[in-house]
Amino acid sequence: MSSEIICVGTEMLLGDILNSNAQYLAQQLAQLGIPHYYQTVVGDNPERLKQVIEIAASRVQILIFTGGLGPTPDDLTCETIADFFGVPLVEDPEVIEDIAEKFAQRGREMTPSNRKQALIPQGAKVLPNPTGTAPGIIWQPRPNLTIFTFPGVPSEMYRMWEQTAVPFLKSQGWGQEIIHSRSLRFWGIGESALAEKVSAYLNLLNPTVAPYAGKGEVRLRVSAKATSAAAAEELIAPIAKQLIDIAGLDYYGADNETLASVVGKLLRISRETLSVAESCTGGGLGQMLTEISGSSEYFWGGVISYDNSVKVGLLGVNPEDLDKFGAVSATVAEQMAIGVKTRLSTTWGLSITGIAGPTGGTDEKPVGLVYVGLAGPKDEVTSFEYRFGTIRGRALTRHVSANAALDNLRRRLLTR
Amino acid sequence: MSSEIICVGTEMLLGDILNSNAQYLAQQLAQLGIPHYYQTVVGDNPERLKQVIEIAASRVQILIFTGGLGPTPDDLTCETIADFFGVPLVEDPEVIEDIAEKFAQRGREMTPSNRKQALIPQGAKVLPNPTGTAPGIIWQPRPNLTIFTFPGVPSEMYRMWEQTAVPFLKSQGWGQEIIHSRSLRFWGIGESALAEKVSAYLNLLNPTVAPYAGKGEVRLRVSAKATSAAAAEELIAPIAKQLIDIAGLDYYGADNETLASVVGKLLRISRETLSVAESCTGGGLGQMLTEISGSSEYFWGGVISYDNSVKVGLLGVNPEDLDKFGAVSATVAEQMAIGVKTRLSTTWGLSITGIAGPTGGTDEKPVGLVYVGLAGPKDEVTSFEYRFGTIRGRALTRHVSANAALDNLRRRLLTR
Repeated sequence: MSSEIICVGTEMLLGDILNSNAQYLAQQLAQLGIPHYYQTVVGDNPERLKQVIEIAASRVQILIFTGGLGPTPDDLTCETIADFFGVPLVEDPEVIEDIAEKFAQRGREMTPSNRKQALIPQGAKVLPNPTGTAPGIIWQPRPNLTIFTFPGVPSEMYRMWEQTAVPFLKSQGWGQEIIHSRSLRFWGIGESALAEKVSAYLNLLNPTVAPYAGKGEVRLRVSAKATSAAAAEELIAPIAKQLIDIAGLDYYGADNETLASVVGKLLRISRETLSVAESCTGGGLGQMLTEISGSSEYFWGGVISYDNSVKVGLLGVNPEDLDKFGAVSATVAEQMAIGVKTRLSTTWGLSITGIAGPTGGTDEKPVGLVYVGLAGPKDEVTSFEYRFGTIRGRALTRHVSANAALDNLRRRLLTR
Repeated sequence: MSSEIICVGTEMLLGDILNSNAQYLAQQLAQLGIPHYYQTVVGDNPERLKQVIEIAASRVQILIFTGGLGPTPDDLTCETIADFFGVPLVEDPEVIEDIAEKFAQRGREMTPSNRKQALIPQGAKVLPNPTGTAPGIIWQPRPNLTIFTFPGVPSEMYRMWEQTAVPFLKSQGWGQEIIHSRSLRFWGIGESALAEKVSAYLNLLNPTVAPYAGKGEVRLRVSAKATSAAAAEELIAPIAKQLIDIAGLDYYGADNETLASVVGKLLRISRETLSVAESCTGGGLGQMLTEISGSSEYFWGGVISYDNSVKVGLLGVNPEDLDKFGAVSATVAEQMAIGVKTRLSTTWGLSITGIAGPTGGTDEKPVGLVYVGLAGPKDEVTSFEYRFGTIRGRALTRHVSANAALDNLRRRLLTR
């Protein structure tokens, strides 16, 4: 028993999009222990798609299709599969109802072309799409051959895979030996420095430990093979604990935790509140904090003081200091933090001012220079200087700046 | 004449890496006008690789391999290709010399396993690798079949492609016709509705027109085949103009333009300024506006009024109206817009208040209910109601809300 991933879409043959669906599905198949030997990409062309189906059906037993389930005429994955196996398409009334409902929710009319998405090969089961209008199918057109179809939109595909395909595959006996991982996340230490600190762990066999770096942070992925998630966790837990102890304060969280979610957790525990004053990040710090549902409990808001007039008018930054030290300075960062904390009556005020680039740098204040200000209880106020340089580019510099600000607050909350 | 990309490497079948090589090569093939119909990924397994070669050699005339050229025993692309065509491998003395020199430069000894990288099928030409030790080949094992091999390391592959493969392909007559595209972007219309409006264009052959949807917007990709980028543009321009005319105000920009950049362009032209007041987006609207370097010319800043106390204290929202209509209401959205516009002394004030979910909804005010407020010159103020429902999830609802706000300002700036 082995599998093949077939991605349908001319946009991949033109190089318009990166085929991240194949990677996601490959990881998922590995986790379930399903052998996976081929990936094929083919365009929106029924003849070539049929040839691809013929080859795949002759060499593997599980075919996983993504793409080509949309409402437009060039979306023809489902009808081509049905045609290949000589089975008619039938309209599924539940799918029609589901599509109509989704259009109604968005206050739009369902168009005739959307009806096409409800056509399912006779005998196939619908693989529901909770977030979009294109359902997939699970189908055994003949013995020893199982077909899955998914839309090409990654977010829709992920949910359909997790909610329906995985339980189905498990019911077929897959996933008895699984690979289970925990990702430990670190801020404030480089990949090679962390790898050296934990070098003894990088040769382990079960669990394995592998470092990854990206977007300013480093991760250690601890992966164990076992018969259940719980058994894998038992292998992972002691190693993870040792790694966390070695890293100390540079470790901030695991898996889906973010610096914003960890800061939120700490503020919730201490029953304190936070406000932000942002210049070069322009709202990005507030956005990170409010990605978490329920953040209104501790995050009260902030001021985007992009223009200096806003720094003075809404945050009470001293115009003379602005002149003397410049908008990108420790003094102004501290006054921004105090200003927002005071005006919003929060326990903590966190500020960012910097030069994200690519323009606006000078010899004295180069692109990548960023100050973070932190104001807290009992009039405490501090600032932190960063020189991120130019190589990261504007978007990443802003991302790293916002996270650096959160990391300072995190360390402060953990060490008082 | 058409081509297939064959990527060799078990790491792709495990989902450890994203197959960016396929996207790069696909873009390059499109630019050269080389038809490209299939991409195949196969593991480091000689039997399966041979079957893949057999299938590819029967359906296309140009095979482009990446991966499996390294010095380790599981790197076997070159020897498997030679084996398939029944041709012996011969050691290339120039390659041996090149590898030895590269090792010397790095102050390392060449290992015996690196000798393997100098084995080339008899009759093949070496495709030099300026930055790494693994050379590729250009080979015609039989008439009407050309094989290229490249290492899997992207940076090495790019240079080898550009420096040797492209000149070779051009010498064979390719690249006289290229494919050039423009992506038209639309907001406020669904994929199927737009596809129906422009249905007559979806069957064009040169340029072609294809719809794509994602993250709340729809795109039409107009792609032309021609002998130069300028000639392709001449084919694209009249069709693009017609599509834009049909779509009217739903069209907002092309290629890398965003709603934020388009609004910025319009504000720059009218020499006006903007401030924002954000509740459920928590800073995301400000972040979008400030993604653009130079946005400080027209974007002055804003207030993140996540907590109601900030709506009252910093934006001057009437507490009685907050009680009466609730924070998520047209009235409060309008007062937020007026408040931020007045306090920051900008021409326009744009506000967002809503329930991003997943919690916080009620029967009367469900998750996905969002109000956008827009305040402008001469005390004009309006608001817009959206019911995005729950299916998009928190992150996408926030993204769509911020873009919907920008879209309203865009339409207002274009229709006065």
